[in-house]
Amino acid sequence: MNIDNLLYFTECAEPARRLASELGCQASGIHVHHFPDGESLVRLPESLSGNIIIYISLHHPDAKLVPLGFAASAARSLGAEKVALAAPYLCYMRQDKAFHRGEAVSQRIFGTWLDEWFDMVLTVDAHLHRVKSITEVIRCGVNISAAPYMARFLKGDDSKPLLLGPDEESLQWVGQIAGAAGLDFGVAHKERHGDRDVEITLPDVNVRGRDVMLVDDVLSSGFTIARAAEAVRRKGAARVRCMVTHALFATGAEELLADSGVESVISSDTIPHASNAIFMAPGLAEAVREY
Amino acid sequence: MNIDNLLYFTECAEPARRLASELGCQASGIHVHHFPDGESLVRLPESLSGNIIIYISLHHPDAKLVPLGFAASAARSLGAEKVALAAPYLCYMRQDKAFHRGEAVSQRIFGTWLDEWFDMVLTVDAHLHRVKSITEVIRCGVNISAAPYMARFLKGDDSKPLLLGPDEESLQWVGQIAGAAGLDFGVAHKERHGDRDVEITLPDVNVRGRDVMLVDDVLSSGFTIARAAEAVRRKGAARVRCMVTHALFATGAEELLADSGVESVISSDTIPHASNAIFMAPGLAEAVREY
Repeated sequence: MNIDNLLYFTECAEPARRLASELGCQASGIHVHHFPDGESLVRLPESLSGNIIIYISLHHPDAKLVPLGFAASAARSLGAEKVALAAPYLCYMRQDKAFHRGEAVSQRIFGTWLDEWFDMVLTVDAHLHRVKSITEVIRCGVNISAAPYMARFLKGDDSKPLLLGPDEESLQWVGQIAGAAGLDFGVAHKERHGDRDVEITLPDVNVRGRDVMLVDDVLSSGFTIARAAEAVRRKGAARVRCMVTHALFATGAEELLADSGVESVISSDTIPHASNAIFMAPGLAEAVREY
Repeated sequence: MNIDNLLYFTECAEPARRLASELGCQASGIHVHHFPDGESLVRLPESLSGNIIIYISLHHPDAKLVPLGFAASAARSLGAEKVALAAPYLCYMRQDKAFHRGEAVSQRIFGTWLDEWFDMVLTVDAHLHRVKSITEVIRCGVNISAAPYMARFLKGDDSKPLLLGPDEESLQWVGQIAGAAGLDFGVAHKERHGDRDVEITLPDVNVRGRDVMLVDDVLSSGFTIARAAEAVRRKGAARVRCMVTHALFATGAEELLADSGVESVISSDTIPHASNAIFMAPGLAEAVREY
């Protein structure tokens, strides 16, 4: 898809401008005015033509989705032909079934909304469990991986870290990064007993004296990474860092990581955060052009 | 429409249960769990049948609309036949055109969402300007007036207040209440220079020594009512109170009203608030039955 104009929600200005630069198109901010009664007024550029892409990162999504839906509809009214969405962090991908009878299957409902609003929905490392492809959830969805960009970043890292995934689900992904970067890797076993209660069993690899890089797709509460960091430090690791695609960082996560001995966090720019060091714009631009 | 089950968002438990009682149906709470990452998990009763009505008051709407959309969709998946919405305060009814080129026409966009989600949308005193009927905005919309219930309340008030509307738009509405309650009334002239800058010119009625009841559809910032109260006090009113359908009460509104000499506020229960004294359940129930 050829893009004529990128529109971004202002909290994503920096990564959005990087994407516009890769796409070689103009970038304009979407102005959101909040009235005293809590309603939002969304203003786009005065006229649009051709295909546009809206850029937003959908962490803490509920209050963002109404302005996003308004922007998508307004873009068409103002003359846009096709309207794509770049949501490098996509929400509501976890609730893919009713775990208890009566629960809304948010993933499925949210997917139908996105298909109604957009002609293409582009994201990075969507948190998919029981579905194999994002197109089962969002017909116009495209899910790219941060793994090649993580591998490229690690190739430039002289310390040759040992990569460690926190659970079996990360096996293929961590293996791919390790293979491309020429590094050792292992995958731990994780048992989750609650939102904030996680147990980690390390794999049978020697971490003594090693520089360990914990690798995960999302850093939210930080409990998984903290437990893993404590485990590798107990086994004698010399240094523990962490690399994630999505730097969600719930309240308290930074302190928790620091207390567990994680020296630093390296994240992709799918969610704006001080730890962003891996830029996804080239990958996003390629996926847009190929669609 | 016959209703088998009412489901309510828990902040509206009291008025919702009053409506269920009028409708003679069961009422159950909708459970919303907020994950640490800001996503919402919505849980309804384990099974539903027949027609249901969901009750929610849509002030400060953005964060509420996602759980509401999930609930509407989940209700159908769980077996509901028709899904109605009782939103005694309805949001996004003011932005009925693009006041500046580029603006999203929220009223129109939001209306199409409601028509997709619900079989009936019931509200009270929707803030409509340039459209005559709510069905131009929401095909399945029904808009009832709090006026008859305000008139009934005022009939029981021995002080025989003079009713005063703050602007010409309120003429028909205040006239209707005054007529039904057998009270004098007048309507002021209002000029709005900004969100918080309002000028009120009183009508040619004698307020000296009178008990004045300012009547409006919505009390938000409180600036309009405060300016009107100051004006009638300057003209010698003995007592100033205020009666509104929707007690929105933006931050600072209560202090502003107290400072301007408003003795008390009487509101309908379309938005839960300590000033609620006029119960809309009978009117809502009648409209549901007649649909």
